[in-house]
Amino acid sequence: MTTSYTPPKVWEWDQDSGGKFANINRPVSGATHEKPLPRGQHALQLYSLATPNGVKVTVMLEELLERGIEQAEYDAYVIDIMEGDQFGSGFVDVNPNSKIPALMDFSTAPPTRVFESGSILVYLAEKFGHLLPADHAKRTECMNWLFWQMGSAPMLGGGFGHFYAYAPEKFEYPINRFAMEVKRQLDVLDKRLAEHLFLAGDEYSVADIAVWPWYGALVLGYLYEAAEFLDVTSYGHVLRWAKNIAERPAVKRGKIVNKTWGEPEKQLHERHSASDFDSRTEDKR
Amino acid sequence: MTTSYTPPKVWEWDQDSGGKFANINRPVSGATHEKPLPRGQHALQLYSLATPNGVKVTVMLEELLERGIEQAEYDAYVIDIMEGDQFGSGFVDVNPNSKIPALMDFSTAPPTRVFESGSILVYLAEKFGHLLPADHAKRTECMNWLFWQMGSAPMLGGGFGHFYAYAPEKFEYPINRFAMEVKRQLDVLDKRLAEHLFLAGDEYSVADIAVWPWYGALVLGYLYEAAEFLDVTSYGHVLRWAKNIAERPAVKRGKIVNKTWGEPEKQLHERHSASDFDSRTEDKR
Repeated sequence: MTTSYTPPKVWEWDQDSGGKFANINRPVSGATHEKPLPRGQHALQLYSLATPNGVKVTVMLEELLERGIEQAEYDAYVIDIMEGDQFGSGFVDVNPNSKIPALMDFSTAPPTRVFESGSILVYLAEKFGHLLPADHAKRTECMNWLFWQMGSAPMLGGGFGHFYAYAPEKFEYPINRFAMEVKRQLDVLDKRLAEHLFLAGDEYSVADIAVWPWYGALVLGYLYEAAEFLDVTSYGHVLRWAKNIAERPAVKRGKIVNKTWGEPEKQLHERHSASDFDSRTEDKR
Repeated sequence: MTTSYTPPKVWEWDQDSGGKFANINRPVSGATHEKPLPRGQHALQLYSLATPNGVKVTVMLEELLERGIEQAEYDAYVIDIMEGDQFGSGFVDVNPNSKIPALMDFSTAPPTRVFESGSILVYLAEKFGHLLPADHAKRTECMNWLFWQMGSAPMLGGGFGHFYAYAPEKFEYPINRFAMEVKRQLDVLDKRLAEHLFLAGDEYSVADIAVWPWYGALVLGYLYEAAEFLDVTSYGHVLRWAKNIAERPAVKRGKIVNKTWGEPEKQLHERHSASDFDSRTEDKR
């Protein structure tokens, strides 16, 4: 790869560049159009899409329901990011950063907005007292790995995934840079999971829920068709952990909520009650 | 920029590529050498460097001390990442991810390890009951913005900063991609700070402490010499907020702790007590 590029003194937006998703990436924030959000019957209203960050939250909610917590019932609506739904005025009011997932909790007065998947996981864990250990040492270790995911996955998604799968050309230097970092991250997880059943220790927690849709999906071959390139089977402990979690009923349900692509029977565009899963083969309750 | 690159079936490590920091980036994790960590007299032992992620924690600790919390006294030791200190066995035991900052709290039995800057901020805020609002709505909004920083700054540091300042060549496509995202993020902050004094609302909090060393430093011209390129002065509300925070005594102290470069009088390699700042011009208590 050769280049004779010299950056200009002041950067200017070239709307023609950007590869896949170029049409939804902008250098400015805020709403582009008026569009109120739909609202269902439950206290919790989720506006999302079944991307890895979206799946974190639907898995969390299904795990809470699996434990019999009825107040965790929720309505889940699709935010179609390819259509620019994230720039609608209603969505921007919930998440000024225009990213899914975003949650409204109408059980509080006034209602509470929660954005950023990590913030939503902590919010739900603390609201219902599940999946974030109460014990000081365990809670701390859980938060360490939860925050690890937040700071690490952008190198996988916004870095490796973009340049390996979505950029308009295969640029060698960025692919190398981000592949190396993702492999290092997988090795960090592998060493951790060699010694512990779950990331925070012996308990399944929000740390696993946050990491699985990214690194679990990666080693299971769901992400970017990069399994061979990254030699994911060499991370045996991550693979064991990922397969184990994939079998959880809540995970099977959560990963199809707000899914609008792939096999029709593994899609559930909107979710309003547990019975919505009944018509979904294999992934049903 | 043209390329005829076709990724191999399986990625392999080329140790000659990588630009600045190439010698410290690896596709594997874990310790490379035996090296115990030093330990001082206080319960809190910080192993860090005055990079943006390191400054978050030293500012947090100095803010707590500013509020008279004596138990927040700490010893801060330098982890020289260019020398590979992050791969020493003692450091890896505290942070298996080999990134600064990392904290040990010896006031608990057994001692508690805390890694990831966001996790450390929450840990200290909850331990001492400061800088993370107790009120449900305010706490949630604070956590939203704290997690926003965690997920966003990798696009600034590992994305924009790397390609604009550190990569071996100026690659146009990555610079454009990450510049656009950073400008969008600055605009998100600008709109938020147009309506609120601080990120979480009317109170200075861990959200500001996390965001300031990255986006505050960026608009103040400290990061990557990119102020003109990103036209940072157009984000007037971020600039007002950044200048305001820069004047806080705890920030003036925190930003020089574990600093090993720049003007000698604005460096403090190790910090063991408040009096360590006495010889530092302008930034002293």
